[in-house]
Amino acid sequence: MIEGKLREVIAGVAPVDRAYEARAQAVLDNLTKPQGSLGRLEHLARRVAGITRSLCPPHERKVVLTMAADHGVVAEGVSAFPQEVTRQMVHNFVRGGAAINVLARHCGARVVVVDMGVAGDLSDLAASGAIVSKRVRGGTGNIARGPAMSRDEAVQCVVGGIEAVEQVHRAGVDLLAVGDMGIGNTTPSSAIIAAITRSEPQMVTGRGTGVDDESLARKVTVIERALRLNKPDPNDALDVLSKVGGFEIGGLAGAILCASAKRVPVAIDGLIATAGALLACTLCPTAREYIFASHRSQEPGHQVALRHIGQEPLLDLGMRLGEGTGAVIGLFLIEAGIRIMTEMASFSDAGVAEKL
Amino acid sequence: MIEGKLREVIAGVAPVDRAYEARAQAVLDNLTKPQGSLGRLEHLARRVAGITRSLCPPHERKVVLTMAADHGVVAEGVSAFPQEVTRQMVHNFVRGGAAINVLARHCGARVVVVDMGVAGDLSDLAASGAIVSKRVRGGTGNIARGPAMSRDEAVQCVVGGIEAVEQVHRAGVDLLAVGDMGIGNTTPSSAIIAAITRSEPQMVTGRGTGVDDESLARKVTVIERALRLNKPDPNDALDVLSKVGGFEIGGLAGAILCASAKRVPVAIDGLIATAGALLACTLCPTAREYIFASHRSQEPGHQVALRHIGQEPLLDLGMRLGEGTGAVIGLFLIEAGIRIMTEMASFSDAGVAEKL
Repeated sequence: MIEGKLREVIAGVAPVDRAYEARAQAVLDNLTKPQGSLGRLEHLARRVAGITRSLCPPHERKVVLTMAADHGVVAEGVSAFPQEVTRQMVHNFVRGGAAINVLARHCGARVVVVDMGVAGDLSDLAASGAIVSKRVRGGTGNIARGPAMSRDEAVQCVVGGIEAVEQVHRAGVDLLAVGDMGIGNTTPSSAIIAAITRSEPQMVTGRGTGVDDESLARKVTVIERALRLNKPDPNDALDVLSKVGGFEIGGLAGAILCASAKRVPVAIDGLIATAGALLACTLCPTAREYIFASHRSQEPGHQVALRHIGQEPLLDLGMRLGEGTGAVIGLFLIEAGIRIMTEMASFSDAGVAEKL
Repeated sequence: MIEGKLREVIAGVAPVDRAYEARAQAVLDNLTKPQGSLGRLEHLARRVAGITRSLCPPHERKVVLTMAADHGVVAEGVSAFPQEVTRQMVHNFVRGGAAINVLARHCGARVVVVDMGVAGDLSDLAASGAIVSKRVRGGTGNIARGPAMSRDEAVQCVVGGIEAVEQVHRAGVDLLAVGDMGIGNTTPSSAIIAAITRSEPQMVTGRGTGVDDESLARKVTVIERALRLNKPDPNDALDVLSKVGGFEIGGLAGAILCASAKRVPVAIDGLIATAGALLACTLCPTAREYIFASHRSQEPGHQVALRHIGQEPLLDLGMRLGEGTGAVIGLFLIEAGIRIMTEMASFSDAGVAEKL
């Protein structure tokens, strides 16, 4: 059973327009360069044309949505950083000092931070409009001991992600990137990936922010226990989310679904955002046509998740930070592809001879 | 024997400063992110610190140098496009309609076009200052029938590349990208790579702008004949350049050497720029410390050349256009690394707890 708002958004996700993709290819093939010589930049342009039904897609209004929440499973010692860092980093985002702020400035994107359920009080930031609040509660349950959240809460966080994108969309957005912040969140992300792709936990679990060998072994055991105890149904994304997920991961799934319904290209970041994309694509397989995998994370589960939704990342820079740092660079490459399609001269415009 | 100006530049290329690299690492390790979690962006920042001897390297003045010339070997039918396209594309560059113009605008870089020896008259563009002229003559000799150029001309085009960077440096440049334009120039580039890396021509020869199977086979035969006939000495870069090279390839080598001597990070494009880098590193092995491989070209010889100078490219987007299109995106990533190092908050600045 899926709740009304969510059902409505899923029903609004239509396949991309193949006719526009073909028209974009014809435009690209007539520009002053050998055909296909800009490789994946051309693929990006073609996909965006199909998504937006435009040969001149707008691209200036770029937004990166960084969704933050906390995780009860940190009690098991699965993270290298203390839980309070989630809240501290939200303040860092608001002051503009985090990696995502620097890279978003560099790429010309606006950072929108969403509190999906951070432990501790962020009401001052929400009240001042510095962040968007869609908080469910201050951290999930410990998945090693029980479910992360109720099914109602799972729906609530997905709808929170939808509403966050609706808000961004009202203000204007051409290209969206999504990322995460949440100490401990590689653990539920790996659990989601293990559940949905039916993989062994040890194949999809990595060091997150940098745990040692002992903690990594404990993390695998925790995920095994969480799956055994909670028995998520791989075909029911809301069941997986409620049993072993996280509020920001559900929010990311909702954000991806809403972007797809509104025909906005959406670049996903690393492990956590891709776990959100797995949930989104389980709820609505067509959503994958709107998703752009930005970079290959160092986390082993990332590749497994990307393969499951048929995505090949644009970048492989050994990054493993999250926040949307890879996604915002991916957005910049998508924009490069659009500008190639819309700003280059054709052979006839430029008086350049064509291929012999 | 190496001529005065060139010898002087080579003597001015000093090793990068390892102490600054270590200091940059200490800065990076104290920023609000898990250590090393920005992967290659951090490596880029550290390298630039070592090159520039600065923990706050300037990065705003970005220039892409696109060096153009023609090639007598097109008479053998090795290219999919007619020779006049080189000159036509220079006009396209000046009008801002080519891929490099679009991507340079996107990345905030200025395009400087250098005529190293284009067939046909470009004197109007040079006179108006729209391009820089360092032309040797209107196209090389056909390497399948004799040498590309004399040894004096080889020195002349390398010095031309040096002078072009000196001119750009006087106007102000923080980060440099180098690329090429020249119908037929994958043939001399593959010949240079085969000679210097002692590889079989068929292992380092590709389809360039898109020749068919028959022309590809002919291209391999042409390169084999050029090497057999001209007998370039792999240890003597000027001999290789004069026997089987091209004016823009020599210019690229000179540009890389001059950037290295002036401690300016230099991003190299694909096959042709990397052939230039091979020449530069043969003349001056220390120059490789200043070089950043931007992307992996579709051309098979590119990987061989990169391995020879110990470089791993930043991007792999299936591009094979040249002009500096990959290099300018590489420059944008280098700048991202610098901005991470110089703009992010530290743990103590931001009041964020450190690793447990």
